[in-house]
Amino acid sequence: MKVVVSIGGSVLAPDLGSERVRAHADVIEDLAAEGCTVGTVVGGGGVAREYIASARDLGANEIELDDIGIDVTRLNARLLIAALSEQAAPSPPEDYESAGAAMHRGDIAVMGGVTPGQTTDAVSAALAEYTNADLLVYATSVPGVFSDDPNETDDAQKYDELTANELVDVIAGLEMNAGSSAPVDLLAAKLIERSGVRTIVLDGTDPERIADAVRYGEHEGTDVLP
Amino acid sequence: MKVVVSIGGSVLAPDLGSERVRAHADVIEDLAAEGCTVGTVVGGGGVAREYIASARDLGANEIELDDIGIDVTRLNARLLIAALSEQAAPSPPEDYESAGAAMHRGDIAVMGGVTPGQTTDAVSAALAEYTNADLLVYATSVPGVFSDDPNETDDAQKYDELTANELVDVIAGLEMNAGSSAPVDLLAAKLIERSGVRTIVLDGTDPERIADAVRYGEHEGTDVLP
Amino acid sequence: MKVVVSIGGSVLAPDLGSERVRAHADVIEDLAAEGCTVGTVVGGGGVAREYIASARDLGANEIELDDIGIDVTRLNARLLIAALSEQAAPSPPEDYESAGAAMHRGDIAVMGGVTPGQTTDAVSAALAEYTNADLLVYATSVPGVFSDDPNETDDAQKYDELTANELVDVIAGLEMNAGSSAPVDLLAAKLIERSGVRTIVLDGTDPERIADAVRYGEHEGTDVLP
Amino acid sequence: MKVVVSIGGSVLAPDLGSERVRAHADVIEDLAAEGCTVGTVVGGGGVAREYIASARDLGANEIELDDIGIDVTRLNARLLIAALSEQAAPSPPEDYESAGAAMHRGDIAVMGGVTPGQTTDAVSAALAEYTNADLLVYATSVPGVFSDDPNETDDAQKYDELTANELVDVIAGLEMNAGSSAPVDLLAAKLIERSGVRTIVLDGTDPERIADAVRYGEHEGTDVLP
Amino acid sequence: MKVVVSIGGSVLAPDLGSERVRAHADVIEDLAAEGCTVGTVVGGGGVAREYIASARDLGANEIELDDIGIDVTRLNARLLIAALSEQAAPSPPEDYESAGAAMHRGDIAVMGGVTPGQTTDAVSAALAEYTNADLLVYATSVPGVFSDDPNETDDAQKYDELTANELVDVIAGLEMNAGSSAPVDLLAAKLIERSGVRTIVLDGTDPERIADAVRYGEHEGTDVLP
Amino acid sequence: MKVVVSIGGSVLAPDLGSERVRAHADVIEDLAAEGCTVGTVVGGGGVAREYIASARDLGANEIELDDIGIDVTRLNARLLIAALSEQAAPSPPEDYESAGAAMHRGDIAVMGGVTPGQTTDAVSAALAEYTNADLLVYATSVPGVFSDDPNETDDAQKYDELTANELVDVIAGLEMNAGSSAPVDLLAAKLIERSGVRTIVLDGTDPERIADAVRYGEHEGTDVLP
Repeated sequence: MKVVVSIGGSVLAPDLGSERVRAHADVIEDLAAEGCTVGTVVGGGGVAREYIASARDLGANEIELDDIGIDVTRLNARLLIAALSEQAAPSPPEDYESAGAAMHRGDIAVMGGVTPGQTTDAVSAALAEYTNADLLVYATSVPGVFSDDPNETDDAQKYDELTANELVDVIAGLEMNAGSSAPVDLLAAKLIERSGVRTIVLDGTDPERIADAVRYGEHEGTDVLP
Repeated sequence: MKVVVSIGGSVLAPDLGSERVRAHADVIEDLAAEGCTVGTVVGGGGVAREYIASARDLGANEIELDDIGIDVTRLNARLLIAALSEQAAPSPPEDYESAGAAMHRGDIAVMGGVTPGQTTDAVSAALAEYTNADLLVYATSVPGVFSDDPNETDDAQKYDELTANELVDVIAGLEMNAGSSAPVDLLAAKLIERSGVRTIVLDGTDPERIADAVRYGEHEGTDVLP
Repeated sequence: MKVVVSIGGSVLAPDLGSERVRAHADVIEDLAAEGCTVGTVVGGGGVAREYIASARDLGANEIELDDIGIDVTRLNARLLIAALSEQAAPSPPEDYESAGAAMHRGDIAVMGGVTPGQTTDAVSAALAEYTNADLLVYATSVPGVFSDDPNETDDAQKYDELTANELVDVIAGLEMNAGSSAPVDLLAAKLIERSGVRTIVLDGTDPERIADAVRYGEHEGTDVLP
Repeated sequence: MKVVVSIGGSVLAPDLGSERVRAHADVIEDLAAEGCTVGTVVGGGGVAREYIASARDLGANEIELDDIGIDVTRLNARLLIAALSEQAAPSPPEDYESAGAAMHRGDIAVMGGVTPGQTTDAVSAALAEYTNADLLVYATSVPGVFSDDPNETDDAQKYDELTANELVDVIAGLEMNAGSSAPVDLLAAKLIERSGVRTIVLDGTDPERIADAVRYGEHEGTDVLP
Repeated sequence: MKVVVSIGGSVLAPDLGSERVRAHADVIEDLAAEGCTVGTVVGGGGVAREYIASARDLGANEIELDDIGIDVTRLNARLLIAALSEQAAPSPPEDYESAGAAMHRGDIAVMGGVTPGQTTDAVSAALAEYTNADLLVYATSVPGVFSDDPNETDDAQKYDELTANELVDVIAGLEMNAGSSAPVDLLAAKLIERSGVRTIVLDGTDPERIADAVRYGEHEGTDVLP
Repeated sequence: MKVVVSIGGSVLAPDLGSERVRAHADVIEDLAAEGCTVGTVVGGGGVAREYIASARDLGANEIELDDIGIDVTRLNARLLIAALSEQAAPSPPEDYESAGAAMHRGDIAVMGGVTPGQTTDAVSAALAEYTNADLLVYATSVPGVFSDDPNETDDAQKYDELTANELVDVIAGLEMNAGSSAPVDLLAAKLIERSGVRTIVLDGTDPERIADAVRYGEHEGTDVLP
C-alpha cells in the first residue's frame, strides 16, 4: 500500500519539542515496517506564523511570506527526518520527482512546501496524485471536515463521508464564508477531485489514529471517496 | 509603471506561426521603450493540448501531464524571447525570484509555468504579487469575465468592472457549474484578491488592445479593482 | 547485455499520436524484462522542426534554435517515459552521469538532447560510450547507411556492413555532398569510432526490428563493426 | 568603502519581533546610501537553538544539526531582506560567488550559513576575504574580545586593540578553557589572520554603533589590526 | 565590437606559470577598456593531457576522460579570471546562457569546456554564434590553417584566407589523414560555417597578435570569411 | 563496518601517475568486497600547489585559491573513481548529503573539497560525522601525530594514542608554533572531538597499511580515541 500522510505544523511540533515528532515518526516507521510505501508532507505551524508576522511588519509581500513559510516547513521536515533516521531520504525533497524517486527507492520522503501560492495541503494532494497513492491522510488539528467552522458555530456538523465533488463544494463554501478555517484548502480539494485518490481527514494529534486509518480504514474523521 | 502581461498559448501561437508572436513582441517592446518594466507569462495552447492528450493515452497521471504542459509553456516562452531578442532575459525564468531579478535588472522576463497544480493564470498573478506590479493584464481569447460561459449560454453577461472579491465569487461559481471555461482560474483570482493588484481581463488576439489598456487604461474587457 | 537505443523523433511520434510511442515502449519493456539494461535517446521530429522554423523567422540564432530543439526532444522523452511508467527514470536525464546512474540503478533512462551544437545522434553515441554499452541501435526513418541519399539518387547503395572507420568516411562524404541526409551525423560517427561500440542502423518505424536486432543480431540495416 | 557586517542571530531577532530587524536594516540602508558596498551575514539565535535542541533529542548527528542551524540563519536573512526590500538581493546567497556577484551589481547581499562545520562567524570572515573588503564588523551581544568569559570571570579584561595574530591566540585560549563563549570562533580568527582584513568586534544590540564604527572608526569594542 | 577569443591550454599556461596568463589578461583587459565586449574560452593543455593519460591507464572511458579534460579547462579559466580580477565573471560559466548573460552585463566571460564530445574549439564557435559575435579569434600554437600538418610535411602551405565552406573541407581532409593536428576541429568548423561569424586563426603565443587582429584586422594567420 | 578514508593528494598521486591510484583503489575495493561501507576524501597535492602558486602570483585572494584547490581535489577524486569503476559513484559528491546517499546505496563515495575555508582534513571528519562512521583513517605522508614537526625537530615524539581532547590540544599547539605541518588541521580535530568517531592517523604511502588498520586495527600510526 502506498500512502501519503500530511501532518499539520501545529500537529507535529506545537512547541518545537521533540515528543510529538517522535510519536509521529514511530507510527510512520511502523507503517513502513509493515510494508507501506510512505510519503509525508509537513506544515509550518507556530514558528511559520511568527516569522510571517514579523516579515509582514517589515514589508514583505505575500509571495515572500510564502517563501518564508516554505522554509519553515522544510525545517520541520528536518525534525521528522532526524527522528526517522536511516529510513528517510536525508533532506526534504523540493519537488515531486525527487520525492517520488525517494519513495521508489524504498525511502520515506518527508517534504515541506514546494512553491509560493500553494499550501502544504495542496502539496500533499499533488504528491499523492504524482505517486498514484492508494490513500491520502490529512492529520490536522480538527477532527474532520465540518459544514461550518466548529470553533465559531455551535451547530457545525462533521461529515463522515463525502465524495470528492462534495468536498470541493463544501470547502469552496467554507472559504467564501469563513476565511481559511477549512481543514484542507480548495486547491487541495480540487487536486483530490481530479486524481481520484481516496482521502481521510482526521484529528492527528494522537498519531495512532493515523496508523488505524491506514491499517484498517478505521477513524472518526471524514472519508472522501473518489 | 510595472506591468505583468499574461498571454494565453492560443492567443500567442495558435498555429506555431511567427506572426502573432512578432505582433505581441512589438507591443511589449514598445511598452518597455516607453519606460514600463514588463514581465510576461505565456500559456501552452494547442501544442500543450496535443502532447497532454497523447501522454494521457499513454498512462501519465495528472501531475506528469502538468509537467508536460509546463515544458510546452517554456517552449512558447522561447518563441517570444526570440522575437524580443536582447531585451529579454535569455531563457524563461523558472521561479519568481529569477523573474523578479531579471525585471530588476531592466530585462523583460518571459516565464512559462512553474510547478504542477498551478496554471499560468496563477503564475501571472503570483509574479504580479511578487514584483509589486501596478497592473496585471490577462490577454485571453475571450473578451472579459462573463456571468456564464458565453459560448454555451446566450444571455451570459460581460462584467465591465468587478472588485477582486466579486471576481473570486464569479470564478468560483463558473468553475462549479461550467468546467474550466473561466478566463482566469480560481487560484489566480484568489492571488489577485490577496495582493490587491489592479487587473484587466481582455481579448488579446489583437495585441494593440494590451498596449491601450496599459497606456491609457482603455479597453473593452473587465476591470478588476482591488 | 547493455544497449542504447536511439529513436528518431519522426520515428517515435510522427504526429504526436500515442500508438507509435506505445509500440516502442512495449519493445523496450520486453528487452528490459529479458534482462537488458536499456538507455534510450529520443529525437525532436516534426514538432521540433515547426518550433525551429518559427523561431528562426523571429530572429533566433542557431544556438537558440538548438536549445528549442533540445526542449522538444525532452518533451518527446516524456511521452516515452509516460508509456514506460515505473520502469523509467521519471524525468529525462540532462547529462550522461544522471542517465548512467539511472541505468546503474536498473531504471530505463530516456534522454533527449544535451547541449547546443550536438544532435541526439551524438548524444546516443556518447551515452553508449559513457555506459560502456555492448550495442548501440539507431532506429531511423531510413533502412540503413547508404552510399548516397536514397531519396535523391537512384543508384544509392545500402551498406550491409561497415567498419567504424569506413562509417566516418561515408558520413563525411555524405555531409559534404548532400546536406544532412545521413542517418547519423559525423560527430556521432566519430564517437562510435573512438568508443568501439558495435552499432546497428536500421529502419525503426516497426519497433520489432529493434527487438530482433538486439536479441538475435538480425536486421536488414547496416552493421557497424569496431 | 566595502564592508561586511556580521550580525548575531540573537542581536538581530532576539524574539522574532520586527523592531530590531528594522533598526539594523535602517543602518545598513544608510551606509549603502552613503556609498558603501555592504555584505551582511546573519546568525541563527534562539530559534536555531530550539530547533537544534529538539533535533538532537531526536537523534540527529552534529552535521545534521549544522544543516538545521544553516536553514534558520537563512530564514533570519529573509527577515532582513524583507526590511531592506529592493536594495537587497532577493534571496540569501548560498555561496561566496553569488554573494560577491550581488555586491558587485550594487545590491546588498544578506547571507546565512554556508556549509556544516563552519559558523556564520567564519562565513563573515570568508566573505570579507573573498570580496577584498576594507572592513569586517562583528555585531555581537558582548562588547568586544575579552581575556576571559566576562559572564563567568569578574576580572575578564576587554582588549581595545589586538593584532590578528594575537586574536588567534586569545580565541584559541578561550576555546580551550571556556567552551564557545568567544565572540568569534577560531576558524573565523584564522581567516581574519590570513586575509589581513581590518576587523572590529562590538556590541551590536544598538545598530547605531555599527554605523559609527564604519563611518568614523569610532566604537567601544575591539579593533583587530592586520 | 563583440569578440570571442579562444586560447589553447598550452598557449595560455604551457607550464602552469603565471607570466603567459598575465600577458593574455593584459591584452584582454586592454580590448575591454577600448570598448570591446569580450568572451574567452580556455583549453586544457599539458595538465589535461597528464590527467587524461593517467585516467586512461586506470580504465576511464572516453566520456570520463572528456569530463576530466573539462575540469582542467575550468581550472585554467580560473587562472585567467584571477588575472582579470573584478572585470571577469567570478567563476567559469558552464553553459552559453550564463556566459552570454555575463557579457551582456559587461563582464568578461571566461569559459572552459561544456560537455563531453565537444572540444573547447567547438565551445568557442558556439559562444560566438550564441552571442552574435563580430569576430572569433583562435589563439593556437600554430600560425594558421595549413593544407597539411606543418610539423610532419615540409610542403604544407598556410592559407591566408578561406571561406567557411573551404575551412570545413580542409579540416575534414586533415582529420581524415592526419589525426587531430588541425588547429580547430571539424565540429568547430561546421559551427563557424553555419553561424557566418568572421574567424581568424593565428599563433597566440604572443598575445599582442590577438590584440592587433581584433583592433586592426592585422595578423599573419588565416582569415575565415563567411 | 563503515569507514571514511582520507587520502592526501601527495599520497594518492605524487606525480599524476596511475600506479599509486591503482594501489589505493585495490585496497578500497577489497574493503568494500569484505562488506565495508566506504567513503573516501582525496586531497590536492602537488598540482594544487602549482595552480595555487600561479593564481596567487596573478592576484587571486585566499578564497579564490581555496576554490582552485577544491577543483584540483575533485580532479584527483576522478582519478580514483576511474580506478574504482562501477563500484564508485560516477562523479565526486559536492556535499555531505550526496556522499551519504551514495554510501547508503552501497556505492563508494569519493569526495574532494567542499567549500572555501575548509581543508579536505575537515571534510573527512565531517563526512565521518555525517555518516556516523565507525572509523576514520587519515592516510598521510607522515607516520602519525607528533609532538612537534618531525622534519624540523629531532626529538619530536610520535603519539601512539591520544584522546580526541588531547588531539585538539596538540594540533592547536602545533599550528601556533609550526605553521601547517600538522597531519590533520585544527578544524578537523575539533570535528573529531565533537563527533566521537574513532580515528587513526598513519603513513598511507603503502595503502596496505590502511587495509590493516581497518581490518585488524593494526597500524604504526596514532590512535585517537573518543
